Amino acid sequence: MTLPSLRLKANADRRLRAGHLWVYSNEIDVAATPLAAFQPGDQAILEAAGGKPLGIVGISPNNLICARLLSRDLKHTLDKSLLVHRLNVALSLRERLFDAPCYRLVYGDSDLLPGLVVDRFFDILVVQLASATMERHKDEVLAALIQVLKPSGILLKNDSAARDAEGLERYVETVHGDVPEWVALEENGVKFEAPVLAGQKTGWFYDHRLNRARLAPYVKGKRVLDLFSYIGGWGVQAAAFGASEVMCVDGSALALDGVERNATLNGVAEKLTCVEGDVFEALKELKAAEERFDVVIADPPAFIKRKKDLKNGEAAYRRLNEQAMRLLTKDGILVSASCSMHLPEDDLQNILLGSARHLDRNIQLLERGGQGPDHPVHPAIPETRYIKSLTCRLLPNS
Amino acid sequence: MTLPSLRLKANADRRLRAGHLWVYSNEIDVAATPLAAFQPGDQAILEAAGGKPLGIVGISPNNLICARLLSRDLKHTLDKSLLVHRLNVALSLRERLFDAPCYRLVYGDSDLLPGLVVDRFFDILVVQLASATMERHKDEVLAALIQVLKPSGILLKNDSAARDAEGLERYVETVHGDVPEWVALEENGVKFEAPVLAGQKTGWFYDHRLNRARLAPYVKGKRVLDLFSYIGGWGVQAAAFGASEVMCVDGSALALDGVERNATLNGVAEKLTCVEGDVFEALKELKAAEERFDVVIADPPAFIKRKKDLKNGEAAYRRLNEQAMRLLTKDGILVSASCSMHLPEDDLQNILLGSARHLDRNIQLLERGGQGPDHPVHPAIPETRYIKSLTCRLLPNS
Repeated sequence: MTLPSLRLKANADRRLRAGHLWVYSNEIDVAATPLAAFQPGDQAILEAAGGKPLGIVGISPNNLICARLLSRDLKHTLDKSLLVHRLNVALSLRERLFDAPCYRLVYGDSDLLPGLVVDRFFDILVVQLASATMERHKDEVLAALIQVLKPSGILLKNDSAARDAEGLERYVETVHGDVPEWVALEENGVKFEAPVLAGQKTGWFYDHRLNRARLAPYVKGKRVLDLFSYIGGWGVQAAAFGASEVMCVDGSALALDGVERNATLNGVAEKLTCVEGDVFEALKELKAAEERFDVVIADPPAFIKRKKDLKNGEAAYRRLNEQAMRLLTKDGILVSASCSMHLPEDDLQNILLGSARHLDRNIQLLERGGQGPDHPVHPAIPETRYIKSLTCRLLPNS
Repeated sequence: MTLPSLRLKANADRRLRAGHLWVYSNEIDVAATPLAAFQPGDQAILEAAGGKPLGIVGISPNNLICARLLSRDLKHTLDKSLLVHRLNVALSLRERLFDAPCYRLVYGDSDLLPGLVVDRFFDILVVQLASATMERHKDEVLAALIQVLKPSGILLKNDSAARDAEGLERYVETVHGDVPEWVALEENGVKFEAPVLAGQKTGWFYDHRLNRARLAPYVKGKRVLDLFSYIGGWGVQAAAFGASEVMCVDGSALALDGVERNATLNGVAEKLTCVEGDVFEALKELKAAEERFDVVIADPPAFIKRKKDLKNGEAAYRRLNEQAMRLLTKDGILVSASCSMHLPEDDLQNILLGSARHLDRNIQLLERGGQGPDHPVHPAIPETRYIKSLTCRLLPNS
């Protein structure tokens, strides 16, 4: 197969040589190789300004990120054979790391499969195609997944905002076998069921696995508050790790059904209380009722979705964490998480410091955690790093 | 007791109000309160330019950091009673976190005890006094430690470079009970003995505890290389966690004696090989001999001790990590650590990316770890954060 060329402007190859995989539309020499000549999902040989080939790219002619490097080896175009190879490389890491086959199997660029996310729940796969190239190669992707993993069901959860920029429709569809409404998984030895069809994203957030595992020494025998609990990823694990009592707060009835379901699954239902409603309102009410907790977990949805939300988002993180601190016992622990890619870890740390100073409390930063190793960071692509989790102890200022 | 005042210049209180604990000599209004009027270790009431009291400081009149905040409460001067209180606050965190009484009990500023470090090895305490204030209050420090912890021995390991800036002599002295040459400890369920008198720093590095714990899933059944092994903190744990074979390289015969001693203690001596010599030389020889390892751990001493060493230090980290990568099998794991406070984590990450690109290998950053929670970071004092550990997978560039 002879591929057409996509030519870069002078010096636009630098970032790619340094390891990055993305090409922006303003970096293309459109006089030599007009983007308009390509269909969404076409492959091409990416060339430096001088003509030197850099690798194979998949093209999204109408997106700001107009091409993504699929391989630096010109022999490897995206086909079933390359997909099977990449899946096996991804799988070998996860099999080395985890006892149960429950993990993010493919994390896009970091697994050299830009635009593809696959979460594995034992025999069920939930797949997100987020680029025109992956959408166009849907059949090969599914065939490769079936060959490598022999799943009993595959759900395409193609409803992410990333698809809009690629000009792709949103849809959710079971494309192989059967996928039940609630799908079983295991994390840190604790059992869960996740609503993969109706829930958030792929139904479960494997990214906080290691941060949740680190709850164990902090929650034993303690009273815990889990804010934005979703289906109990943190709260149910806290209970399973020996917390005396856990209160989960979330705005979604489906999420709290999940909490109850998962608490029951682990025999800790009598320790769990669910509060349905706005988290900021609940924080005010708990304060007014003089409730106190030994450990508060604040893992909200992304308050900063786009760069322009930064100011408002930071204010929301500040408000949330300060209100959470007010509910802590005198040497209480705050686990403050953020999944906003635009919020650097140092900013979150400064927000916590500012809140503690405002409340005249001393703060010790005990642990900083990131996304688990089934969400590898591509060190040349800062966008692949998004999870922050800071564990702090708040003390009286004496 | 009436304390003298130490007056700041205008606006010099800002950093302290934001949470910091240090005062620099150029921030003092020396016309109002000359530093020369103070003896090393004197206490004073720190005042803002307008006269508002900010707290109690301990003074080192001849150091660039001429004062450190001991308390924001004017009632609390540094005495045995405050020391006992602070030790109990520090102890309650460690007792919550660790099964065995082996940890850094006091980490200076972060535990609101600037200038004091205490490492606990069951009943033995190794203490470092690094400020004139702590040296002057040595008797109260020891009395407080004896009251709170009832140790069988206390070693003053007062030989750190920090003492020079404070104008303090260096000395090492057993000041209470008995301290054997090799002292027992436990980390992540693995037994060790550390040479607290003759070894590096306090004899052991508790700071990498959690990063070493995370070795487990990576090393099982694998061949491991531990560079700058010291007494086997990483290597012996790797063997105990199921590595098939571990090679430890260090320049010190005492360190390698420790490796053998600790390997024997855990019944894994037959898996360990020790290589005494320069690590960079050893790397060259291993390459020439075409040796390969599934996991390489590179945890060198600080290559960047002062800011002016930055360029040379970065080059040394680059050389070390690149040579380490050359010894990896085709999907090998590199654990790259740095204890240089002056090397930001992002710089280490860029060094690893550059090395991988230079060797034409793909790199995935799987985990980033910091110092354990018995070395809390004071979020207002960047100097309290120093440990980095990046776990990467290196893949062929296909």
